[in-house]
Amino acid sequence: MAQSIEYQDQSKGPLVIIGGAEDRDEDCTILREFVRLAGGTKAHIAVLTAATAYFEETGAEYDRVFTQLGAAAVDVVHTQEPKDANDPRLLEIVADATGVFFTGGDQSRVIRVVQDSLLEDLLHKRHREGVVIGGTSAGAAIMPEVMIAEGDSTTHPYLNAVEMSQGMGFLTQVLVDQHFAQRGRLGRLLTALLLEPSVLGLGIDENTAVIVQGDTLEVIGEGAATVVDESGASHNNLSQLLRDEAMAVFGVRLHILPHGYRFNLKTRQPSTPADSLIPEH
Amino acid sequence: MAQSIEYQDQSKGPLVIIGGAEDRDEDCTILREFVRLAGGTKAHIAVLTAATAYFEETGAEYDRVFTQLGAAAVDVVHTQEPKDANDPRLLEIVADATGVFFTGGDQSRVIRVVQDSLLEDLLHKRHREGVVIGGTSAGAAIMPEVMIAEGDSTTHPYLNAVEMSQGMGFLTQVLVDQHFAQRGRLGRLLTALLLEPSVLGLGIDENTAVIVQGDTLEVIGEGAATVVDESGASHNNLSQLLRDEAMAVFGVRLHILPHGYRFNLKTRQPSTPADSLIPEH
Repeated sequence: MAQSIEYQDQSKGPLVIIGGAEDRDEDCTILREFVRLAGGTKAHIAVLTAATAYFEETGAEYDRVFTQLGAAAVDVVHTQEPKDANDPRLLEIVADATGVFFTGGDQSRVIRVVQDSLLEDLLHKRHREGVVIGGTSAGAAIMPEVMIAEGDSTTHPYLNAVEMSQGMGFLTQVLVDQHFAQRGRLGRLLTALLLEPSVLGLGIDENTAVIVQGDTLEVIGEGAATVVDESGASHNNLSQLLRDEAMAVFGVRLHILPHGYRFNLKTRQPSTPADSLIPEH
Repeated sequence: MAQSIEYQDQSKGPLVIIGGAEDRDEDCTILREFVRLAGGTKAHIAVLTAATAYFEETGAEYDRVFTQLGAAAVDVVHTQEPKDANDPRLLEIVADATGVFFTGGDQSRVIRVVQDSLLEDLLHKRHREGVVIGGTSAGAAIMPEVMIAEGDSTTHPYLNAVEMSQGMGFLTQVLVDQHFAQRGRLGRLLTALLLEPSVLGLGIDENTAVIVQGDTLEVIGEGAATVVDESGASHNNLSQLLRDEAMAVFGVRLHILPHGYRFNLKTRQPSTPADSLIPEH
């Protein structure tokens, strides 16, 4: 299976996938890195507020932070209705941006507004051209081809714990969940992975991000990213399960990666920033 | 390593380890099984309330349930101070019991009261003689040799997430955490396992129990038991970590086992109640 998996080719722009509640007032470690990847003091950042009904406040907040971090220009792109995603004035902002940032809110709003629009095509074109795409919370959830649209938080997996839908598809063969430690979402991610076999799960804590470049991801921030690998795992027959019944899963592999740790999406191997990793036994 | 591990020998009584909040009003699946293991309608059950300051109400509640389930006799043993654990009248109840049940509360209270007492010796003697020992919540936490005395709930492990102390030692080479899904305690259990290498972790959901007999455990109830196997895992150098810093862990194995599923503590292999387990790929 592994050799057929296509993640990101190296020529595409990096992804900055944030687990929500990132620091916007102190060190701004994560957003600072996003600005750096967008070109630093030459960065032109487009902030996409499609996820949120509070687009004015949210847009203003990221305008403030990115400007403070030294970006050359910040433009907020409000797309509240599908027609806005074909607005030539808004498309021009994205066409000129060196970095695109999706705010938090509700991931389903983003898809409803952006799907099958000129904006969608343009975002993928810009990404292929090397532009960095960032997103926090709902803005992180939309990164993969398939996303967790909704779901209960629970540590043991059961069939109706999650609802899946189409994502933006910047990242393939990976599922993303956010606010991971803070909302105890392992069960929800495990369930999602049972429904989408062969993909990797990525649970990102608050104020923590995963930066994907090519086949490698690196963790930055305060918490950890939990990589859930169900290749080699087995589970009970989902078609025989009733709603609310617990699933059985044998042999899931977990890696918990704090700041500086890396993971190769192709080989599915974690690696350490230094030589500090010692065998436990 | 595995061949040197001694779990339970078969002649010892079963353990019924409950993740808290077990049903006491409807089917009573778990408590019913405890009564059955204690001898059914011939059961003499000693309810130990050492964990709780609300010993009167808690004792009365379990007296009601066990009586209703058909136990021949239920005696509540209140040991609030270490001296109570040497009281001949209370010891006689335990000496005659066919089942001993530890209520919830605070696990540290149990150890403070029972440690180094005649009651402690007697409990181990009765267990060796085949008497079933049950416990819920704090009463589950005390089962192993080493217990999680206190700790934050968080999915990513960090060094001060847990405080370990001595448990009752009915079960060896296993760590137990309760209210597992409900309180998002994977991080706390992972941290505890990093501090106690080579043991297995057992996270038990609410209204769910693990029944240990010899080397085998079986899950009953509504949720699941999560078995965390860190043999083969590696982690960063704990001695170099500061408080609150996230730990890195590579290659933890997880098994999530609902009602009817089993796990062999010696071989560390899960097994299925039926033939429903299919490979995922």
